[in-house]
Amino acid sequence: MAKKPRIKKHKQKPGLAPGTIVYTGQKSSQSLYIEIFNYSANHITEKELTSIDEALTYKSESSNEVTWININGLNHTDAIEKVGNHYNIHALILEDIANISQRPKIDEFENYLAISMKMLYYDASNGLTSEQVSFILGHNYVLTFQEAEGDVFDGLRERLRHGKGRIKSLGSDYLLYALIDSVVDHYYIVIESIGEKIEDLEDDLFNGSAKEQVTNQIQDLKREILRIRRAVFPLRDIINRIEKSEHKLISERTIPYFQDVYDHTVQVNENIEIYREMVWGLMDMYMTSISNKMNEVMKVLTIMSSIFIPLTFIAGIYGMNFENMPELHHKNGYPILLVVMLFMFILMLIYFKRKKWL
Amino acid sequence: MAKKPRIKKHKQKPGLAPGTIVYTGQKSSQSLYIEIFNYSANHITEKELTSIDEALTYKSESSNEVTWININGLNHTDAIEKVGNHYNIHALILEDIANISQRPKIDEFENYLAISMKMLYYDASNGLTSEQVSFILGHNYVLTFQEAEGDVFDGLRERLRHGKGRIKSLGSDYLLYALIDSVVDHYYIVIESIGEKIEDLEDDLFNGSAKEQVTNQIQDLKREILRIRRAVFPLRDIINRIEKSEHKLISERTIPYFQDVYDHTVQVNENIEIYREMVWGLMDMYMTSISNKMNEVMKVLTIMSSIFIPLTFIAGIYGMNFENMPELHHKNGYPILLVVMLFMFILMLIYFKRKKWL
Amino acid sequence: MAKKPRIKKHKQKPGLAPGTIVYTGQKSSQSLYIEIFNYSANHITEKELTSIDEALTYKSESSNEVTWININGLNHTDAIEKVGNHYNIHALILEDIANISQRPKIDEFENYLAISMKMLYYDASNGLTSEQVSFILGHNYVLTFQEAEGDVFDGLRERLRHGKGRIKSLGSDYLLYALIDSVVDHYYIVIESIGEKIEDLEDDLFNGSAKEQVTNQIQDLKREILRIRRAVFPLRDIINRIEKSEHKLISERTIPYFQDVYDHTVQVNENIEIYREMVWGLMDMYMTSISNKMNEVMKVLTIMSSIFIPLTFIAGIYGMNFENMPELHHKNGYPILLVVMLFMFILMLIYFKRKKWL
Amino acid sequence: MAKKPRIKKHKQKPGLAPGTIVYTGQKSSQSLYIEIFNYSANHITEKELTSIDEALTYKSESSNEVTWININGLNHTDAIEKVGNHYNIHALILEDIANISQRPKIDEFENYLAISMKMLYYDASNGLTSEQVSFILGHNYVLTFQEAEGDVFDGLRERLRHGKGRIKSLGSDYLLYALIDSVVDHYYIVIESIGEKIEDLEDDLFNGSAKEQVTNQIQDLKREILRIRRAVFPLRDIINRIEKSEHKLISERTIPYFQDVYDHTVQVNENIEIYREMVWGLMDMYMTSISNKMNEVMKVLTIMSSIFIPLTFIAGIYGMNFENMPELHHKNGYPILLVVMLFMFILMLIYFKRKKWL
Amino acid sequence: MAKKPRIKKHKQKPGLAPGTIVYTGQKSSQSLYIEIFNYSANHITEKELTSIDEALTYKSESSNEVTWININGLNHTDAIEKVGNHYNIHALILEDIANISQRPKIDEFENYLAISMKMLYYDASNGLTSEQVSFILGHNYVLTFQEAEGDVFDGLRERLRHGKGRIKSLGSDYLLYALIDSVVDHYYIVIESIGEKIEDLEDDLFNGSAKEQVTNQIQDLKREILRIRRAVFPLRDIINRIEKSEHKLISERTIPYFQDVYDHTVQVNENIEIYREMVWGLMDMYMTSISNKMNEVMKVLTIMSSIFIPLTFIAGIYGMNFENMPELHHKNGYPILLVVMLFMFILMLIYFKRKKWL
Repeated sequence: MAKKPRIKKHKQKPGLAPGTIVYTGQKSSQSLYIEIFNYSANHITEKELTSIDEALTYKSESSNEVTWININGLNHTDAIEKVGNHYNIHALILEDIANISQRPKIDEFENYLAISMKMLYYDASNGLTSEQVSFILGHNYVLTFQEAEGDVFDGLRERLRHGKGRIKSLGSDYLLYALIDSVVDHYYIVIESIGEKIEDLEDDLFNGSAKEQVTNQIQDLKREILRIRRAVFPLRDIINRIEKSEHKLISERTIPYFQDVYDHTVQVNENIEIYREMVWGLMDMYMTSISNKMNEVMKVLTIMSSIFIPLTFIAGIYGMNFENMPELHHKNGYPILLVVMLFMFILMLIYFKRKKWL
Repeated sequence: MAKKPRIKKHKQKPGLAPGTIVYTGQKSSQSLYIEIFNYSANHITEKELTSIDEALTYKSESSNEVTWININGLNHTDAIEKVGNHYNIHALILEDIANISQRPKIDEFENYLAISMKMLYYDASNGLTSEQVSFILGHNYVLTFQEAEGDVFDGLRERLRHGKGRIKSLGSDYLLYALIDSVVDHYYIVIESIGEKIEDLEDDLFNGSAKEQVTNQIQDLKREILRIRRAVFPLRDIINRIEKSEHKLISERTIPYFQDVYDHTVQVNENIEIYREMVWGLMDMYMTSISNKMNEVMKVLTIMSSIFIPLTFIAGIYGMNFENMPELHHKNGYPILLVVMLFMFILMLIYFKRKKWL
Repeated sequence: MAKKPRIKKHKQKPGLAPGTIVYTGQKSSQSLYIEIFNYSANHITEKELTSIDEALTYKSESSNEVTWININGLNHTDAIEKVGNHYNIHALILEDIANISQRPKIDEFENYLAISMKMLYYDASNGLTSEQVSFILGHNYVLTFQEAEGDVFDGLRERLRHGKGRIKSLGSDYLLYALIDSVVDHYYIVIESIGEKIEDLEDDLFNGSAKEQVTNQIQDLKREILRIRRAVFPLRDIINRIEKSEHKLISERTIPYFQDVYDHTVQVNENIEIYREMVWGLMDMYMTSISNKMNEVMKVLTIMSSIFIPLTFIAGIYGMNFENMPELHHKNGYPILLVVMLFMFILMLIYFKRKKWL
Repeated sequence: MAKKPRIKKHKQKPGLAPGTIVYTGQKSSQSLYIEIFNYSANHITEKELTSIDEALTYKSESSNEVTWININGLNHTDAIEKVGNHYNIHALILEDIANISQRPKIDEFENYLAISMKMLYYDASNGLTSEQVSFILGHNYVLTFQEAEGDVFDGLRERLRHGKGRIKSLGSDYLLYALIDSVVDHYYIVIESIGEKIEDLEDDLFNGSAKEQVTNQIQDLKREILRIRRAVFPLRDIINRIEKSEHKLISERTIPYFQDVYDHTVQVNENIEIYREMVWGLMDMYMTSISNKMNEVMKVLTIMSSIFIPLTFIAGIYGMNFENMPELHHKNGYPILLVVMLFMFILMLIYFKRKKWL
Repeated sequence: MAKKPRIKKHKQKPGLAPGTIVYTGQKSSQSLYIEIFNYSANHITEKELTSIDEALTYKSESSNEVTWININGLNHTDAIEKVGNHYNIHALILEDIANISQRPKIDEFENYLAISMKMLYYDASNGLTSEQVSFILGHNYVLTFQEAEGDVFDGLRERLRHGKGRIKSLGSDYLLYALIDSVVDHYYIVIESIGEKIEDLEDDLFNGSAKEQVTNQIQDLKREILRIRRAVFPLRDIINRIEKSEHKLISERTIPYFQDVYDHTVQVNENIEIYREMVWGLMDMYMTSISNKMNEVMKVLTIMSSIFIPLTFIAGIYGMNFENMPELHHKNGYPILLVVMLFMFILMLIYFKRKKWL
């Protein structure tokens, strides 16, 4: 069974000043892994490094090249700090990058935009897991920060490597769009998995094959849907703010793309609401299925009792020891009574058949 | 039984750049079919074609003629691309036309408006189906894109062919209105079908003829209503934006017509809300009907048991083998006891009659 | 029983152009009936006609006279058209007047205001019925359009005939206010009838005298409340728009009156919400009343079984045919056993008394 | 038992023009009673009168004196009219003062503010009662109109009589604040009474001492809470409008006081919402308590049946009259069987003990 | 068991003028305890006093020093008054500081900001307790007022004493931020405790080990969550107003910090909503667990009855005293019957096994 989805704990950091970078997740033995893409319309260079100092030197100085630095391993807070200082990022933003219980949000500064979101994964054995990903959009670079290697950007990487068209000729804002779009696209897969789980449960409830633990499964589904909603809902505002901000880093040309991803987040939110309604209905389905089962149990009891209790009564009558009971001495008393009893038995069966209890 | 209405899957297109036109629906063997209407106040020409190149040549150049090009078969993405390039439509819009899981939306450009909506159909065997229809409103043309032939525009076609009045003398914006109005008018038919299904279920629940699968039917109804709502709800904003946009393509004269169709979408939404409340109430109705049935079962059991268990006890008494039981030797012991038992039987019947259990 | 309140069907008019006046109601054999009031501060003339041509000639030309033309019979679409042309009303407005499934709304034009609302009636045998009433406010006239004779304006007619005060000295906008106020005042009566029905049901549920059809009654009540809400809710906005419109036809002097009727519509809406909550609570009340009844049934069964099953067992013991059962041969075995059984019987009664099941 | 709280009926006044003052309450035999306070920073005079003409002469002409005229007895509509004419109050306001089913509201005029609110009282025998109180704030006077003597202003009267500080040196707007504050303060007491009733019901439901009429009590509580909410909810807007109105009668100095009372109304509303949630939860509590009782009943039945039915069967075996039943002739057959039965009895007890049904 | 969490009572203070400082809490024997921190970037002095007069003299006059005066013991209203007069605080603010049933709020004045919030504590034995804390932010000082010693500021004190960085070099607005942040950080701990309680209850309900008092625990949880929400919800607006106020006391530099704490309050609110949904689902879980138990009870009853009632009937047959019952005289009648009975017994067991009732 999937481990219980819990609301992420907020790691207390008492005694620490705000702006202190503390990794609040659990992947603390992750090694640092850095990817760098430098590209312009007609070339691309790609590096994989494990040291931050080296990475910072690889940033292209040419102003029509875009650099994407993808940093994996938030436990390396010193690396985050170095990058932050190099690009002149506010201390609170750096703190938020490492604090994985951060709510999705956007912060606008004069020279950069800072966005943090959740990547969601779903698999049958672990249930829903979420990983924080933070973006820093600068003049001709994008920084991404992730907890661990393995993400939803592989399609994008391919397009960077082999694509000729738009992605490489448009600037860093288009790269930001493409990254966010990859994350949002993956939400569809996650909510579809949830949807399948809901429909399986519905089928189980309908077939009567649901087990008692179904209430827990429903509570877990509720919790997962609420967690997804919490991850996805703030995105609408974030992307809307990018669109409307008129920030100098967001060019006119890429705004339709952000509108497109905005529409997708709206649609994801709508799907979540529908699944929400469905899950909330499951409990009622389960309740009626229990009641239907009880009805069935009661019918068996009632039929058995209603048929045999009167017959037993009659047998009891002729088991009495009165001296003067003429029937007992009748030659055919016994077979006649058996026939009468059979007749009563059949009558009762017909009665219950009519009531549709059989 | 109608096949299970599922929330439309979002076809993943990993590795594809935004703006790539991919048909995401299932009617991939649909052949391309194009209808062209060229009309002005007092004439009309109508063509049916199967090639897009030919179609583009038929567009009238006269600026007081309106051209409606209706393209069926979204799987022919090359045709969409050609039309798009011919009319200079943004790549993202073309992508959305072919992506049938697109949310209803409007995009305003300087020279055209792009709107996508859902046509809803309902029939007893297939349940609710939806088909995406996209509109491009240009200076003196309207393009419509549909997945397959067969739509809700037949009434409109008739009016174009035989009508003299307003429709042919007013411009392309009025045509857009008339097309949207046809779609919205069809929503009434769909939600009425849903309404009838709800009322049939209510009657079944009231008559007690509802089967156990009723919970699934209710969940399916919920899902259908939520899907309709998702298709219809965004229309309010879309039409409101057309009205308020002051776009040069929307003339002062047609705004009252858009207000009219706006009122209709509001009304459709209100009806959906009412049906929603009704459906959510069905589960309670079902629950009480189960409980009522159980009450009935319990009453039968209780009446049978309460009548015969005491009588059986009395028979048991006189079936004991004590030596010294004077009643057994009384000449009329047996008939007296039978009368007493009959009397008790009648008393119990009266008691249950009084309790209104019989 | 009241006939089932259904959501009004939208009559399909396929193939008809917008602006075509089609009566969508059921009172198609209604004869045309026209009332005309011409009045100024100190005189009044009143006419009753059955022809629209005649009616239009009766309109006073004096600019400080107010004319109220009340037209009954929406099936006479030609009459509506003639009036419309005479007063220069937009074709869509005329269509809406005859389309009784129209949502309450207001349309502002330069020279007139068009408002449509619902008159609600409630009687025990027919349940809730609604009739559309449309108002056209012009410079010194008000037109009203109703489906059939018989309305809520009788009090107002009396005030026009005999009143001296405000109503006749203030202009056509005050007349519009007075008409709307009459409609809104009648809503109070309707929702009070609903309220009484709810309280009757509550009493029935409390007394346990509710029948099984109570679930249907509750669903019907829900439907009626939702229909009333749909009729009343849009009024708030309509009246608010009249107040705030600064339309030249609405004088400064009458605005406080519209504020007053606005307050009333808010209050009506609040009352509807309260009744809504009450009705939604009825289902729970019914559910608990069923469960209470089942508890009572179960108690009877349990008491009877718990008392007599052990006693029957004991009687069964002494009905066994073992050779060696000394009790059977004891002289007082039988009476002693009877006493023991009586004692057990009493003990059980005390036990159930203590448990408060008796 | 408290009489059933009903939603106040709207007295129909058909045939009456708007602005006609009609008392719509039930205290129609109330005699007129008028209180007058004239005060400035260092003196106060207090009068009690029963005639309105006399009262109007007592109004101080000194512009730095504040006059509070408190009029009890809304059935004396002629008095309301005289006061209204004397202070030049709009006819609709006077009508609203006497119409006790008026929703709380504020009307701003150039020379005065008119506010109407509800005083709420709660006592165990009568349940919730509400009385309308209207305020007219003028340049240096406040008029208050109440249905009957007895109000929540006694504390304020004391402060006027004996206080030296702020209340007498600040103007009529501060008096208005102090009056409203007295009303709002009393709401706390009312909702605490409701809260205690809810907690009593919860305890009853927990102890299982709740009677069947509990559903009615819960419905009544819902109704009371909804009525309180209806009385209190509009206050937020009213007081907010006073604060923000920048009306010349509201001085800068008193605005913090109105902010304070605004905070209180927000808090009252929040408490109402909490009680609302609690009451809506009571029905669920009751439902589970019924089900728990039924479980208990069923357990008794099942234990008694499961123990004695098999034993009775065994006794029945040895009550058969077969000729060839060796056990019957065994010397110790009977005592052995008794021991076996006792053993079975104990086994069953252990079984049910293990299942925690005992 | 934790004592019942009640909604805080509003202490009535009838007859008192607004602005009168009255302590409305229960810790009336608390002794006055005052802490003073005077610090600038590179020094700090700390005092602990028990007299207010002394405290006021300790305020540093140097304008680049920040003074934090922490006053414990709201029952010492004279001390509050003295401080208030010394710093020229509005009387209503002083009243609110001592009125612990005050809703969280902010008041902006020209020379200071007044904020009041709730510190929440949660422990297993006392449940949720809340303590009011008020902040006055002035030019280079912050005043804090608490009911009793013991708060959530210890971490902050340490940072003041030993920290070198930001906290001591930034001004009083940063101190205010740090104080609020400490309070908000503690909310996470409180709602995690609630979350654990919810999950424990869920486990209990799942294991079937929940006791009947579970409904009360659920109602109590609801109440606690509603109380937390009431304490936390207003904070969003308060902090938002600090951010947006452009008050001269809030420097540009600290605004990002307030944005950060704003994000935290949003996140706390979201978590509360999730727990809310979870708690509301618990009642349904409990209801289904009761029903499942009843099903189990009914199955035992039905199995026992269905097996033994027919067998008892057969035994009853052969216990009849008819003269002419050939089976009784058959040599192997008895053992054959026993075998038949055993066979029926096994058949029934198989039947119930198939039905999955065993």
